[in-house]
Amino acid sequence: MELTVFEIISIGNELLNGRTLNTNAHWLSSRITSLGGFVRRITVVRDELEEISSAVEEALNRGSDWIITSGGLGPTFDDLTLEGVAKALGLELELNEEALKMIAERYREMEREGALKAELTPQRLKMATLPKGSSPLRNPVGTAPGVLIGLNGSYIACLPGVPGEMKAIFDEELVPLIKSKIKRVFRAFRRARLVGVAESDLAPLIDEVRKRFGVYIKSHPVGRYEGKCRLELDVYAHRPNEEEAKRLVDGALEALKEALSGKAERFELE
Amino acid sequence: MELTVFEIISIGNELLNGRTLNTNAHWLSSRITSLGGFVRRITVVRDELEEISSAVEEALNRGSDWIITSGGLGPTFDDLTLEGVAKALGLELELNEEALKMIAERYREMEREGALKAELTPQRLKMATLPKGSSPLRNPVGTAPGVLIGLNGSYIACLPGVPGEMKAIFDEELVPLIKSKIKRVFRAFRRARLVGVAESDLAPLIDEVRKRFGVYIKSHPVGRYEGKCRLELDVYAHRPNEEEAKRLVDGALEALKEALSGKAERFELE
Repeated sequence: MELTVFEIISIGNELLNGRTLNTNAHWLSSRITSLGGFVRRITVVRDELEEISSAVEEALNRGSDWIITSGGLGPTFDDLTLEGVAKALGLELELNEEALKMIAERYREMEREGALKAELTPQRLKMATLPKGSSPLRNPVGTAPGVLIGLNGSYIACLPGVPGEMKAIFDEELVPLIKSKIKRVFRAFRRARLVGVAESDLAPLIDEVRKRFGVYIKSHPVGRYEGKCRLELDVYAHRPNEEEAKRLVDGALEALKEALSGKAERFELE
Repeated sequence: MELTVFEIISIGNELLNGRTLNTNAHWLSSRITSLGGFVRRITVVRDELEEISSAVEEALNRGSDWIITSGGLGPTFDDLTLEGVAKALGLELELNEEALKMIAERYREMEREGALKAELTPQRLKMATLPKGSSPLRNPVGTAPGVLIGLNGSYIACLPGVPGEMKAIFDEELVPLIKSKIKRVFRAFRRARLVGVAESDLAPLIDEVRKRFGVYIKSHPVGRYEGKCRLELDVYAHRPNEEEAKRLVDGALEALKEALSGKAERFELE
């Protein structure tokens, strides 16, 4: 079966303290499913930098084609989504000229309506400060643009939490792109078994290798063998191109084997 | 301040394909918050063993005091919660005599009501097959008991996905235990509504007041009113002492009101 895997990350304390029912994630999962996508997981996290960046990283590591976030794009101190996404991807934040134009235009409109003064305060500039290389998505309803980041065939799209804004940006800006991209995705997988290295000692190496190759590596402790730790390492890659996915998995396993030579007692490929 | 950290794991494909709005997680987070708990994360996963066990493992690794799951306790092949929890904890599954008694009793009752025959089929025995060392939680509404597992001061509680059953077991079986274990933290909360100030213009003031009073302030844009921006401001304080928490919230609201006099058209306390 051809699956295009989506994950939804909902950001906002109000979704975790009982204030707000998470209708956004429900609406998104319904729309994505009807477009032919496969929603694997919904994660709801608080307005905290570490929580946001770890949730994004985990979704990336599970090999998602699309990560759709909602919430945390506004002008206040606790709108941390873009900072969290940038952290997860190792990207800088920078003022995006296109986003700035959109925001300035919106505020001038509101000024003409007598709602406020249109000056570009630091809080408003914040909404135009995006991870490097991303594109703003026009918000036809509110002020904060959505944000789209392409990652070698995968995408992260950040949408506002206000339902009307989230829905408008999704339908007008994302649906055409999703429709054009939904296609076969190849998943490559191989397992290695090793003896003599504790999972905790392996963790930094795994982290380094998975980032270097853009693969997902999961270590499973499987008890002891003659008193030594036994681990299984599962290595996955999801790519539009089958050869590339396999190449990345093999490359990652080769790098692990090399780094562990002289440390692990055994390193066997399944 | 020490918080009692909860995570909620909702299990079910229906929550990811748009079929079902996740009201269970909302209800649970609301109840937990009002009991003084801190809900850090909600994770929604599919009816897949790996998804369930990895979600439980990740929540454990983040150091949660309580993990509450809902869904996947029934008799069908895709009710995999207990298997997933057992896998995450490295526990065997075994027939639990107390759970078996509860289930047998329930089916005898239903037999007396003429609903079915009470024989204990493999599918019914499955619902009495729990991770080793766990305790069944009486289900006053349906057949599948909830399950409680203690882990050196932390707990995993598995509840059914049917809302009536989930709520009844939570209230009757878990609330007394949560109350007896929770680190007492009082949460004070008040809401203000204001008109005529944009969220982006309010952001610096919110930042200043929340730092001065040690409270959490979240602004929610709620559209326009006669062309003017409308906002709700939720102000929270968590303190070991109830009076202190209330005093801080009131102080912060007073400071906001004063700073906004002449700027906001309206400032109303709820």
